[in-house]
Formats: sequence, C-alpha cells, structure tokens
Amino acid sequence: MKKIEIKTIFIKKRSWENLCVEGWIKFNRDNGKIIFLEINDGTTINNLQVTCKQENLCNFEQIKNYKFSSAIRVFGDLKPTNNQKTPWEILAKKIVFLKQASDFPVQNKQQTNEFLRNIAHLRIRTKFQQAIMKIRSELAFSIHDFFHRKGFSYVATPILTNNDCEGAGENFKIADDKNNPFFPTMTTLTVSGQLNAEAMSMGLKKVYTFGPTFRAERSHTHRHLAEFWMVEPEIAFCNLKDLMKIIEQMFKVIIKKTINKCQDEFNYLAQKTQKNMVATLQKLLASKFIRLSYKRAIDILKDACAKGQKFFDCDIFFGKDLAAEHEKYLCEVYFNCPIFLYDFPSEIKAFYMKQNKDNKTVAAVDLLVPGVGEIVGGSQREDDYEKIVKKCHQKNISLQPLQWYLDLRKYGYYKSAGFGMGFERILMFITGVDNIKDVIPFPRYEGYLKY
Amino acid sequence: MKKIEIKTIFIKKRSWENLCVEGWIKFNRDNGKIIFLEINDGTTINNLQVTCKQENLCNFEQIKNYKFSSAIRVFGDLKPTNNQKTPWEILAKKIVFLKQASDFPVQNKQQTNEFLRNIAHLRIRTKFQQAIMKIRSELAFSIHDFFHRKGFSYVATPILTNNDCEGAGENFKIADDKNNPFFPTMTTLTVSGQLNAEAMSMGLKKVYTFGPTFRAERSHTHRHLAEFWMVEPEIAFCNLKDLMKIIEQMFKVIIKKTINKCQDEFNYLAQKTQKNMVATLQKLLASKFIRLSYKRAIDILKDACAKGQKFFDCDIFFGKDLAAEHEKYLCEVYFNCPIFLYDFPSEIKAFYMKQNKDNKTVAAVDLLVPGVGEIVGGSQREDDYEKIVKKCHQKNISLQPLQWYLDLRKYGYYKSAGFGMGFERILMFITGVDNIKDVIPFPRYEGYLKY
Repeated sequence: MKKIEIKTIFIKKRSWENLCVEGWIKFNRDNGKIIFLEINDGTTINNLQVTCKQENLCNFEQIKNYKFSSAIRVFGDLKPTNNQKTPWEILAKKIVFLKQASDFPVQNKQQTNEFLRNIAHLRIRTKFQQAIMKIRSELAFSIHDFFHRKGFSYVATPILTNNDCEGAGENFKIADDKNNPFFPTMTTLTVSGQLNAEAMSMGLKKVYTFGPTFRAERSHTHRHLAEFWMVEPEIAFCNLKDLMKIIEQMFKVIIKKTINKCQDEFNYLAQKTQKNMVATLQKLLASKFIRLSYKRAIDILKDACAKGQKFFDCDIFFGKDLAAEHEKYLCEVYFNCPIFLYDFPSEIKAFYMKQNKDNKTVAAVDLLVPGVGEIVGGSQREDDYEKIVKKCHQKNISLQPLQWYLDLRKYGYYKSAGFGMGFERILMFITGVDNIKDVIPFPRYEGYLKY
Repeated sequence: MKKIEIKTIFIKKRSWENLCVEGWIKFNRDNGKIIFLEINDGTTINNLQVTCKQENLCNFEQIKNYKFSSAIRVFGDLKPTNNQKTPWEILAKKIVFLKQASDFPVQNKQQTNEFLRNIAHLRIRTKFQQAIMKIRSELAFSIHDFFHRKGFSYVATPILTNNDCEGAGENFKIADDKNNPFFPTMTTLTVSGQLNAEAMSMGLKKVYTFGPTFRAERSHTHRHLAEFWMVEPEIAFCNLKDLMKIIEQMFKVIIKKTINKCQDEFNYLAQKTQKNMVATLQKLLASKFIRLSYKRAIDILKDACAKGQKFFDCDIFFGKDLAAEHEKYLCEVYFNCPIFLYDFPSEIKAFYMKQNKDNKTVAAVDLLVPGVGEIVGGSQREDDYEKIVKKCHQKNISLQPLQWYLDLRKYGYYKSAGFGMGFERILMFITGVDNIKDVIPFPRYEGYLKY
C-alpha cells in the first residue's frame, strides 16, 4: 500500500493500484447500493471521489452516516472517471474511520462570506478559503523568490517602535507599567518599516521587509485592516526612474508566477468572483506601464473637465491631492492601463521624499492599476541633511525621535529609493475578492478580535 | 562603460575593461604617489580595491581626503591582484565623488559588539553585521524554500490576539481607550501562532508561520529578546514520530543550504567567533539524530549520578523538569550528537499536548543540540475534546477564550503535530554569535527601544 497525498493524484494523472489516502469528507451521497464520497486532504482544492460498493466493504452501512468533515483513511485502486468535477476516483477496498465530526456549521450549501468571517477558525475548510490561502502562500513565496534572485537581503524591521514614519498618529500603543516601565519611551506598533529599512540599505544596498504592520484606523471599509502585511523594499544608489523599473518588473513577475502555480485555484475563483480575472491579469502583465508626471496628469484632467467630463470635484489645480475618481479616469478611461504617477507637489507628500530641482515637487511615485487604484507607493528619499531637517520644521515634525534617521544622511547617504506594497491589497487585486477581511486568515479591525 | 555590482566581480572572477562601480569607502591609504581605496557596495562583504595613480586622475589630491563611508563612483579597468585580502582591483581612470561622510563613529579599528549595539542604525556598515545579516536573509529564504518545496502553505497568524498559548502571562498589552475601545477584549501581542496555525492545518494540511513573536520577559540574558521571530509549522494527519523526521530533515536542509550560499560570510565569521564552526556544523549535519525517551534519559542520568557524575542538581526522578546541565550531559557527553528527547511527563508540559496511552506522558519532543541546548520544541496535539477540556481544568486554564480552539476538535480533528523554532536561536547557533542582540537588526529588550 502506497500512502499519498491527494495533490499527487492530480499532478501524476495516472491510475494506481493499492493506494492509501487520508482526508476529510466533503460530500457523502449514495443510491442505496453505491456510496460516493468526496474527500479532501488540504494539499489541493480538488476533491477525490471515493466509490464504495457494498460487496467490498464490511462497514458499508456505517459509511452512509459519516458526517461532513469527518476524517477517514481509504485503501483502494485509483482510476479516472468521466466526471469533470471529480476526474479521479478511488475504488475503496477498505475504509478506516478516523474521527467523527459534529454537525458542521458550514455545509455544502452556499454560505455568505459575512457568515464565514464569523467562524474564521473553521472557514479554511471551505474551498473558497482554501483557494485564497493557497494563492496567498504562493504570492508570498513569489515575493521572497523575486527579491532573493535579485540579491536583496530580507531584513527584519521592528514591530515595537517609538517612531511614527507616516506621522498620522493612528498607531496602537503598548500599555506599559508606569512605576516599572518595560521600555524607556512610549511604545507603539510600527506603521512602516521604511525608516529602519533605509538604515539597513546603507550596509546591504538592496533590502526588503515583509511583515505585519498596524494602523489604529477606525474605518470600516472593505479595504482597511488594523493589522496587515506590507512589503517594503529599499535600494541604495537608486533613483526614481530605476525604482519604477523595479516596481514594474516585480509586479509582473510575482503575479505571473502565482497565476502559473495556482491554476486550479484561479479557475475555481473565476466562478466565484470575476469570470475573466485571469485574462484581465494576463492583459495587464503584457501592457507597458505608462509614466505620467503629476503635472501632465493635472493638464489632462483640466482638459477633460473643459471638454465636459463630469467629476464630483472639478476643481483641478496644481497642488491638489487627486481623488479616487481622478485616478480612475486617468487609469481606466484616458490610458486604460497601469500608470506610474510621479513628481507630486511636496505639500501633499511625506517629509522624507526627495525635493526635485524645481523646488516644487518631490520624487514620489504611485502605481495606479485599473479597477483597483493605488497599489504601490514609493519615493526617492531626501539625501541632504539640511533639506530634510528644514522639511521636518515646515511640516511640524519633531526632530528628536527621528534624529538617528536624519543622521543616516551624515555618513555617505548618496541616494536611496524604496516603496511600500500592501500585501492584502495585491491579493484582493489578483483574486478578485472585494473584501480585505477575506484574504487574511484572522482579520483584525475595530470592534473585532476573535480567534 | 558597464555598471556592475561588486558581488558580480567576485562571482565572475574575470578581468574587465571600462567598468563603472559605485560604493562606500572602507579604507583610504596612500604612499604619496598611489592611493589605495577599498570600496564596498553592500552586495557582498568583500571589498574591491581601487588603485588611483596621480597621472590618471585630475582629482588625485582630493581623493586622499575622502573619508570613511563616503560614496564614490569609479570608472576603470578591473584586474586580479596578488593580494588574498583584496583579490580584485580596479585601476581608476576617473573617480566621481558622490557624497562626503562626517567622521564616522565606527572606524576600521576593532569595536566591541556592545558599542555597536548602541549605534544599531549604523552598525550594518561593519563587515561583521553585513555577514550576519546576509546569513540571516539566506537562512530565512532557505526556510521558506524548504516548506514551499514540501507543499506547506505559509499562513499569517495574528499578532494582535486575546489568547495566550503558553499561559505564561508574560505578554505585552495594547493600551486601549476605555471610553471608546478599539477592540472588544483585552488585547495582547502574540506569544505563539500555534493555536491559529492548528486551525489552518485543518483546511490546508501542512502550514507554517514565520513572523514576529513577543514576550514581556524582564530577563537580561544573551538569549532573550522582547521581540523575536519564530517558525511554527503544523501538520494534520501527523504523529510525533513523523514530526521528528520532518524536524531533522528541515534542520539539515536549511543549514546546509545556508552554508553553501554564504561561504564568504562563514569564512569571515570563523575568524571572529569560532574557528571550526563550519566543520562543526558539517559534522552535525552528517550525524543521525538520536531518539531518546524522557524515561530512558532519566535512567541514564540516574546511572551517571550513581557513577559519580557531578551535577549541580543530582536529585533525578521521573517527573523532573530537566535543567540545562542535564541536557548538556546527555547531548554533549553521553551521546555527543543532537538528540530528540520525547514523551515528557504531562505535568511539566503544556495543556495542548497529546496524552500518551500510559496516561503519564505526553507526545512532546525537544531537539537538543550540542553547544546550544534546546533549539526546537514540538508536540503532537491532543485531538480528544473531552481530554483537552479536562487538561485545561487540571492546569487552571480558563476555557472561555480558548473555546474556539477546543471546538476545532469537534469537526474531524484526527491528528496534528507541530513545532516552534526560534529563528534568532538558530542564527546564533550557525553563526557562533553568542549574543542574540547581534543577530537581529534592531533588538528590543527591557529598557531598550532605540531606532
């Protein structure tokens, strides 16, 4: 008897005698004389059919009562079926009952994603969550693999910190003991590893972080979480132009690899979310990403308004922080392809971005993608100590907690550029799943901290 | 002019005309007529020699004043030297000064690790930290690669949680707003992702986590951090025996790959930490790991005491939680090889471990390694709902916050086993670095939260 995983059956695609397979029951139906089980062992989203004939099995009658999610071990011969949904079946010679399941709250009937979110400890047993989480895992590996091949070092930036990179103030604080403090300063959970990644890039040139990040945002949207994962590469000796090349290449490579590795999962999700998802992604991967300066974007939008384009906000001017509708117009109507929007007015961007020679704009870039909007944000960093100090003053940012970061500029900080990519946002984009709470196993958001 | 990274020079090992290289100055010395710079660009720990002759360079005199850590761009021809320390030199035709550095607090002279820890934002510019962090990155990738090849899914388990897996109570708490709480319950930072990983393994069979973990331990040892990274695999349908096989294989594969990928780094560290480090590791990788039951270990230790072995604590009995000196004796004296110590008395182990048939021991395992001690701890999980509830009562563990976890047992939880491995502990082990604060970029511990 050879014991194998169900995934192997779908890879090898061959008949096989005397196999042993373990799994959980996903379907159990019979016509009196034959019982058809479907089992899944978690190695693939595909179920294996187990065909049980009365003459072969002494426990035939009991098998009819095996409940959804019970664990069994099957011995028998594997052969193809004519059924597309379950293309492989094992003709059972012996079935060992391993563990009974109580009545499972998720049955084969369709359950809403809202319902499943409230049993997050069990929902991974649905094909929908299995597919998403397998894609999540492959996408994560593709990211590590991409940067590893490119010679980037994976660096751990701290979660517990006392600097607030974005200055938004929406961070979680650690409750410390006032009489006997664990840490000497107020301690928060990181909102970005960028500042620390910059320090590391000065010794390793090309680095990236990939870890959890936190925002105490009280926003209940389908795109926000209190705890989410970010990828933050940082590259010394790199300018904005080269950064855009790296983002485009990374974006295309990681998505392409994930699609190739997860064909079954994407095919299944296509039935659930968007039918043409993979085709849409393929088209996007084949397109050249447009480089569009903020200044030119403003001209295009002004022109569109003049020609009668109806925006909710038609007050377009240089210095304006563009709204989603404007980005959407540029990305989906005017160009209909991904856009790198770059060189933003300094007033609307963070203190650490490099001042351009025009003294009006900073070397920042957003990647806008049709149907999703901003998915990556990056910049070349200000390398001049005096300029960055001046910017902090202008933006009323306290220098003291940032002094170490500013000091990096004193020791041969020639150039550096980097970006941040919300991992769950990319996952939503490629899976077509419209709620971020469904692409992370145990979501955290205001009012919710279960499991 | 071809622009390349210094790492490429050490991989290609060939002469090259008209190259362009950028990097930071690590040495600057001259004999009046010739200046010898050494530059490093972070892509390798190896420095490239830049040989500057007066007749070729109009800025020859200025170059003498370029300070340590300044950034330069060099154009010239590459050729081998006869010098083992800097086997490649570029004969400079032109040098562009990119960015001056102030007097750098870390010069080429030897600095203690204690001193460097207090400038953690700059220490990555030392060869010592470069080497460790490159090994760290390779080890992390080897771990992802190992589990990916084995069909494991990488799962994100939450950092913000309200369950305390180990029940040690040494967790960080989030300061929530009492009048308008963000989360409905007391919120802590995770001490382990195991409970959540178990839930995921019931849908994906083989999963692993790899992320930050927190302990508010007020212990100032060279082996403890408040924030550290853990790898926690979990495998459904797996028993303790199979788990040991997986641990042994993983341990050997990830270390072997890391050694092969980081030869320069290990050779350099060998001069700094332990001379025979790689040979010691190779020997360990070649040895078969011993399987030793706790019961037999007690017999061996009793016997040793009877024969005159001097332990600080010679009161050996079944039920005793062995001390480091006992593990050390077994591992380094009696067997002199890595040991899987398994089947511990239930009293000294966690509530979630599977009760063995003897009703006295649980299916737990520790991997002990010579020179390091316990490096991995794992167990088969209790799959019986009634038994695990009873164990919680015995150990005075509140059921309510764990109910979801216990409920996993109701739905076909046949078997599951997993382990936890402290990432920094493995790093200390393979690099020979004796302080855990030197193998993580920005260490966090009681009283310290800089950068």
